Amino acid sequence: MMNFRSDNEAGAHPSIIEALSRAYGSGSAKSFGEDAWTRRVEHRLQEVFDNPNLAAFPVVTGTVANALSLACCTPAWGAVYCHPTAHIAVDEANALQFYTSGAKLCPIDGPAGKIDLDRLAEALSQPVYGVVHHPQPAAVSITQATECGTVYTPTEIGAIAETVHRQGLKLHMDGARFANALSCAGCTPAELSWKAGIDVMSFGATKNGALGVDAVIFFDNALSTEFAYRCKRGGHLLSKMRLLSVQLDAYLTNDLWLANARHANAMARHLAAGLTKLAGTRVLYPVEANEIFVVLPAPTNDALQAAGAAYHPWPPGEGVYRLVTAFDTTPAEIDRFLAVAEGVENR
Amino acid sequence: MMNFRSDNEAGAHPSIIEALSRAYGSGSAKSFGEDAWTRRVEHRLQEVFDNPNLAAFPVVTGTVANALSLACCTPAWGAVYCHPTAHIAVDEANALQFYTSGAKLCPIDGPAGKIDLDRLAEALSQPVYGVVHHPQPAAVSITQATECGTVYTPTEIGAIAETVHRQGLKLHMDGARFANALSCAGCTPAELSWKAGIDVMSFGATKNGALGVDAVIFFDNALSTEFAYRCKRGGHLLSKMRLLSVQLDAYLTNDLWLANARHANAMARHLAAGLTKLAGTRVLYPVEANEIFVVLPAPTNDALQAAGAAYHPWPPGEGVYRLVTAFDTTPAEIDRFLAVAEGVENR
Amino acid sequence: MMNFRSDNEAGAHPSIIEALSRAYGSGSAKSFGEDAWTRRVEHRLQEVFDNPNLAAFPVVTGTVANALSLACCTPAWGAVYCHPTAHIAVDEANALQFYTSGAKLCPIDGPAGKIDLDRLAEALSQPVYGVVHHPQPAAVSITQATECGTVYTPTEIGAIAETVHRQGLKLHMDGARFANALSCAGCTPAELSWKAGIDVMSFGATKNGALGVDAVIFFDNALSTEFAYRCKRGGHLLSKMRLLSVQLDAYLTNDLWLANARHANAMARHLAAGLTKLAGTRVLYPVEANEIFVVLPAPTNDALQAAGAAYHPWPPGEGVYRLVTAFDTTPAEIDRFLAVAEGVENR
Amino acid sequence: MMNFRSDNEAGAHPSIIEALSRAYGSGSAKSFGEDAWTRRVEHRLQEVFDNPNLAAFPVVTGTVANALSLACCTPAWGAVYCHPTAHIAVDEANALQFYTSGAKLCPIDGPAGKIDLDRLAEALSQPVYGVVHHPQPAAVSITQATECGTVYTPTEIGAIAETVHRQGLKLHMDGARFANALSCAGCTPAELSWKAGIDVMSFGATKNGALGVDAVIFFDNALSTEFAYRCKRGGHLLSKMRLLSVQLDAYLTNDLWLANARHANAMARHLAAGLTKLAGTRVLYPVEANEIFVVLPAPTNDALQAAGAAYHPWPPGEGVYRLVTAFDTTPAEIDRFLAVAEGVENR
Repeated sequence: MMNFRSDNEAGAHPSIIEALSRAYGSGSAKSFGEDAWTRRVEHRLQEVFDNPNLAAFPVVTGTVANALSLACCTPAWGAVYCHPTAHIAVDEANALQFYTSGAKLCPIDGPAGKIDLDRLAEALSQPVYGVVHHPQPAAVSITQATECGTVYTPTEIGAIAETVHRQGLKLHMDGARFANALSCAGCTPAELSWKAGIDVMSFGATKNGALGVDAVIFFDNALSTEFAYRCKRGGHLLSKMRLLSVQLDAYLTNDLWLANARHANAMARHLAAGLTKLAGTRVLYPVEANEIFVVLPAPTNDALQAAGAAYHPWPPGEGVYRLVTAFDTTPAEIDRFLAVAEGVENR
Repeated sequence: MMNFRSDNEAGAHPSIIEALSRAYGSGSAKSFGEDAWTRRVEHRLQEVFDNPNLAAFPVVTGTVANALSLACCTPAWGAVYCHPTAHIAVDEANALQFYTSGAKLCPIDGPAGKIDLDRLAEALSQPVYGVVHHPQPAAVSITQATECGTVYTPTEIGAIAETVHRQGLKLHMDGARFANALSCAGCTPAELSWKAGIDVMSFGATKNGALGVDAVIFFDNALSTEFAYRCKRGGHLLSKMRLLSVQLDAYLTNDLWLANARHANAMARHLAAGLTKLAGTRVLYPVEANEIFVVLPAPTNDALQAAGAAYHPWPPGEGVYRLVTAFDTTPAEIDRFLAVAEGVENR
Repeated sequence: MMNFRSDNEAGAHPSIIEALSRAYGSGSAKSFGEDAWTRRVEHRLQEVFDNPNLAAFPVVTGTVANALSLACCTPAWGAVYCHPTAHIAVDEANALQFYTSGAKLCPIDGPAGKIDLDRLAEALSQPVYGVVHHPQPAAVSITQATECGTVYTPTEIGAIAETVHRQGLKLHMDGARFANALSCAGCTPAELSWKAGIDVMSFGATKNGALGVDAVIFFDNALSTEFAYRCKRGGHLLSKMRLLSVQLDAYLTNDLWLANARHANAMARHLAAGLTKLAGTRVLYPVEANEIFVVLPAPTNDALQAAGAAYHPWPPGEGVYRLVTAFDTTPAEIDRFLAVAEGVENR
Repeated sequence: MMNFRSDNEAGAHPSIIEALSRAYGSGSAKSFGEDAWTRRVEHRLQEVFDNPNLAAFPVVTGTVANALSLACCTPAWGAVYCHPTAHIAVDEANALQFYTSGAKLCPIDGPAGKIDLDRLAEALSQPVYGVVHHPQPAAVSITQATECGTVYTPTEIGAIAETVHRQGLKLHMDGARFANALSCAGCTPAELSWKAGIDVMSFGATKNGALGVDAVIFFDNALSTEFAYRCKRGGHLLSKMRLLSVQLDAYLTNDLWLANARHANAMARHLAAGLTKLAGTRVLYPVEANEIFVVLPAPTNDALQAAGAAYHPWPPGEGVYRLVTAFDTTPAEIDRFLAVAEGVENR
């Protein structure tokens, strides 16, 4: 295949597919989330995150997971801070502004896809609090793993959280690739989330072996009181909720989610290691999750394309490419990819 | 089982489950709807509706199908007319107002869940057009089958459409149970939709054997130009779109959707016929689709509940109950239900 | 003149004009409402309403007074109940839905422009509270004087308030013609508002001698916490707030507002008395404020139009007309109007 | 007085006050903008801007002028570009996002309050057009005079317009201090607006001698079709519209607006000239309109405050202060201000 376009082009893990088949073949179930799978998912997440009080809600896309969770953190006249490359800023067609009734997005730049702490602290220390003219600082969103494939450490998150909470804001994590980040971080899910100061997160499964489901997890439960209404009026409350819950249930069973992410990350490291050895290529950021951003010489790119390898220029026109591995990427694909690239080098 | 609570509590048809399993086991596919299944669904719908120009978009709930399709028909200062019992009016947590940025819902009453044509004509003839103070009449939405389990005939739809189009409004159909309505109407899908004057519809599959998917179908293609943006910013564009498309593809294959609806309707007729024979019960509306609204004597209700039958009071506290059949309702369930009810009568 | 089209076509009372001239000729003042006039207006309203805790905010139109005050009473997934003829329902271009991010308007009919208490009680007793699908009942809005020129008594308001508060909703009053209503009711402002159970009101001045200003008055102060942000993001916080405050200050000075309304009402009664004596005319509702709705024979209407009288058909095409008096209507105008009408009768 | 806090703290010019008094003393007038003054204002603006096709609408604040005009330029999924210091970005409580139903604001930095052309061109050349995930570039807004008191030349505007229009976007000007900018630019109003490429502008009067009114002016008339509905549902259509129109009418009569701005600018230059001579002070930007941003030594600031001078730190805590002159600033005030400051220097 040699398809490195995106982890969202992958299929789904067999055990998740089978769970879904079983669940829908087993007759009727209460609708709108009052079924056993939905309850079990919340329970499983409470165990995984070592937090018996968290509230969790399955949703069908990462975009709405982000928009709904942040809508619970900010008024319409609020400001939400994020890295300028964040998915909520550039890839979600203003879903955040839609669900928040018009909150402002404020970019805080920083290297390798991470918010710079000093810039954030400066932005949050502006004398705008309670002044009716100014958008009111309400929430900060970090992406884990970042849009550069790097991973915030618990210590980094903790420092951001301290800055965020000092001013009374909420800290959100877009964890579309949380499993991949966790696999790199070498800590517990709790340590990479609420123990580090995350108040609410989008917990991704779609990119890591599910058919299509993410979850919103509230560690600060007071934030979740309006979630059900917001979700419903967004058209995101499924009558046959098991479509989503069953996926998450299987995803969390027997640490499947961790195994999937571990594999994807290992494939990325394998691929990066090979690329690094090639003359003329340059890997742009530390490969900590399952994404590689690499400068490829034009002949290498041409040869790879000709051989059927698939990946996106990122951004277009600059000779930089993004390669994404997934739960079902095979070593053979990578070996073939590297062999093609090495062949160019050796011509 | 004797579960007549709702057709959204049913499982899914095996052939749809199998199609989904196959699709996700077959490796990677382009994301965001650029896959083969999504294209094929639109093509199948063009064939089913005998209309090569329609545009179709899979979505995960009927609520968002309604909200997104109507958002393409009205400005924020517009008015949307519907029956006071319509799902968009009372069961969708203001999703319509959310997606339209605040359009006004205007109830038009009428017997048996259908909009009264004269009342509609009077409402649409008010001298408000172009007057900036007044909500601007923009769209009418009818529900097929209605919330009373009745079915608009093509002639009835045509008369409404004529009134609607004369004033320049658009006509929307909430077809959450379109298959059930079609099975009763004894005409073609085209005759029950665009040939009768429907401009855009929500095409339900969730309640008729799918795992969870509906579609928005634009017959007036000019309305669809902004759909993709509206869908995305609502968080409703799935990266792994096959989750939805594959279901619709299987649903439309070999007329499965028609067979499912035919069965559900037959079960409803069977149940209604038995109920009608019982003393003290009264079926409130013609049973034309898969819903029955029935007055049950208290002892009958008590005995059915005790025997494990499940159904909702509709509305609560008035001795009226709703019974819904589905694609997987069995004659045995109905026979047992009726036997219990008859047993009370004969005591 | 014989202009009975609307009290919003009148000029302004000289003492309000003079106050504005003085205020703007007196040099600089703090902006955004931190000036002395704005503070004094709130203080005057606290005295007028015998309520030292009320919070008051001047705004430039009645439409935004209604929209902003109700936006403080309902979530986006809420329902607001009002008479089907209410200004918020039919004359404000969905401003309510805009400012509430999409609340639903539910009509509660009743004779003579007043909400029928039984219908309201029935609507509010539906089992929808806390059920995520249904718009959540949040507020009721009554119009004082009504769109039929009638006036709710304190007893009537009290009964509505009791029903409203029992269910935990808020009661809003659109008091665009509150002064006219008060002049009829023969009670204190407090008795016609918070003592009867009003939580928040739009207090009109524009139609009663001001150049253009109304106020939002919160009796339930907890509702007002977000008002300033909502007002500002609506573009309704004037930097030179004295434009509005000074008008209200003069309006409330020496009971000018009461005198203006008393005069307008007296003129309406005078006109209605004359019309009642004419054959073929029929006054439709009790004339309790400054509006008359009257059936005029076509020859009478023709003669009046020919003589230069100005008034609106209400609604068009039915032989019914609305006549509105104002603070500056003169007895001579009315006498001339009646003389023309009587002349037709005596031909 | 020595009040240099803001030009929005000034009173109003006597001839505008008198015009308002006359207009409201002259009896009734058609409501909702169908009066003679409103029509005349549009006509006057057509003359002033040498453009018989422009459409103009009076509104009560600059905030809503900006929000409404930009709402006519962008869909909810659009992106609006402006300088990070722009009023729409930091001083309007997300009014832009509110009126656009959630458009994204994108900061484009540049020196002295002006958008940097190269950065803008780069931002607008991103490959996001027609890609559903990305906010769609829709409009650029420049502020004239800028938030640093500098003025875009017609040439600078033309270059921006060329970049903006090449990509199909619209160019908006926040002209809250357009008169002051014009007075500096030494060209015609047309040359500083539509001839340079402005499609729609907010035309300020509040800060330059009015009681409180700005206008939205559409040079691209196709943009204005929805304005009336948007304005009304925002609660910004005054029934007694003459409150706003009369002010603009007088403001534009006999070039009053130009004289007022010329005076304010002259006062600013006078003040800046004096400040520049003082040791330890530093004027930060070219003083081209009526605002001065100056570093003041602490003793100077202390002495000025003690002497009753009023002005804002800008931003707080950095020793920088903003001084704003207005149409009614007197040379005596400035001389006294400078005398106090010089007195400190000479101690």
